[in-house]
Amino acid sequence: MAQGTAIDYYFDFSSPYGYVASHLVDGLAQRTGRAITWRPMLIGAVMKVTGQPLMASIPLKGDYSIMDFSRTARFHGVPYKAPSTFPVSSIAGVRAFYWLQDKHPALAVPFAKALYAAYFAEDRDISLAETVIEIAAKCGVDPAALSAALADPAVKDRTKQIVDASLALRVFGSPYFIVDGEPFWGVDRIPMLEEWVRRGGW
Amino acid sequence: MAQGTAIDYYFDFSSPYGYVASHLVDGLAQRTGRAITWRPMLIGAVMKVTGQPLMASIPLKGDYSIMDFSRTARFHGVPYKAPSTFPVSSIAGVRAFYWLQDKHPALAVPFAKALYAAYFAEDRDISLAETVIEIAAKCGVDPAALSAALADPAVKDRTKQIVDASLALRVFGSPYFIVDGEPFWGVDRIPMLEEWVRRGGW
Repeated sequence: MAQGTAIDYYFDFSSPYGYVASHLVDGLAQRTGRAITWRPMLIGAVMKVTGQPLMASIPLKGDYSIMDFSRTARFHGVPYKAPSTFPVSSIAGVRAFYWLQDKHPALAVPFAKALYAAYFAEDRDISLAETVIEIAAKCGVDPAALSAALADPAVKDRTKQIVDASLALRVFGSPYFIVDGEPFWGVDRIPMLEEWVRRGGW
Repeated sequence: MAQGTAIDYYFDFSSPYGYVASHLVDGLAQRTGRAITWRPMLIGAVMKVTGQPLMASIPLKGDYSIMDFSRTARFHGVPYKAPSTFPVSSIAGVRAFYWLQDKHPALAVPFAKALYAAYFAEDRDISLAETVIEIAAKCGVDPAALSAALADPAVKDRTKQIVDASLALRVFGSPYFIVDGEPFWGVDRIPMLEEWVRRGGW
């Protein structure tokens, strides 16, 4: 299917717009003929660089964004239930994802979709390692092996390196896409990204 | 043409995305059958409430946004030349706009378009009253009358009241649209706004 380079899809597991994008990237791949590379990262690491708080916590913008999360999900027909705790740390999920990518690559994206659904459609607390392990188990992952991996310093180091690499590429939002070296920030920029691929830029 | 209520279009004269939107709202009016009410405001007043700096000055986001301003303009076929001084105070333009709206309402929107073009296509310093007056004169406005208006405390008060009213409506960005009570922030949300009008919400 994919003829050109892949579309890098960066996201945080606790990002509502990143979640909506997770429902749209398969269609994006079909329409553009490009593969999607899923790249979970940590917005918390970005915030240390930008010095900016989460949009949801900013006066005026915060209330708008909370309204817009669910409106955007409904617009795209994506199941959405505002999590009772928001945001949460998603580092356990990121570690699990990259460990799966190394050990059981076919399971990584299905796990990512299941983790997103758990947080944004089923109101599960995905900051807990036990929740991450339970969700991975439903995807066919051995719970004991993942439990050991989440406590493995090598897995933690690898995750940190990947997150640092995304920062080095100046990825500062979720979702954030890079295709053919061109960055696009935000789920509402998917149409522009598609047009960019179609025209080869402008 | 317009059958339902108008679409309120809020913007700052020094906002690149607000400028791009100024080229799109006539088409939006045609496609939705709604009139557009142009409502210049001051992002500086918003920043005092949100405590947030301009996006262009934030690490990582700033460089992206400066790149994205011109990319977005090109995407929509809008002439764009990055101003050599950015941002600038646009209060003189806002005062001129609302004074025109009172005294010569047919000239207000043509003046707004000309002022935006001066800043974002011709690199004029629109923070200067003399520049605002010169641009208005080309639209058929009497320079002496406008010069007097810009120094008139009543015009300043009226402008402040209008800007305060936009803040009371929680308008925090540029462009920012309100239609049928529903807010939409950002030029890239125009497609969603259109769909909202078409479907009557969702």
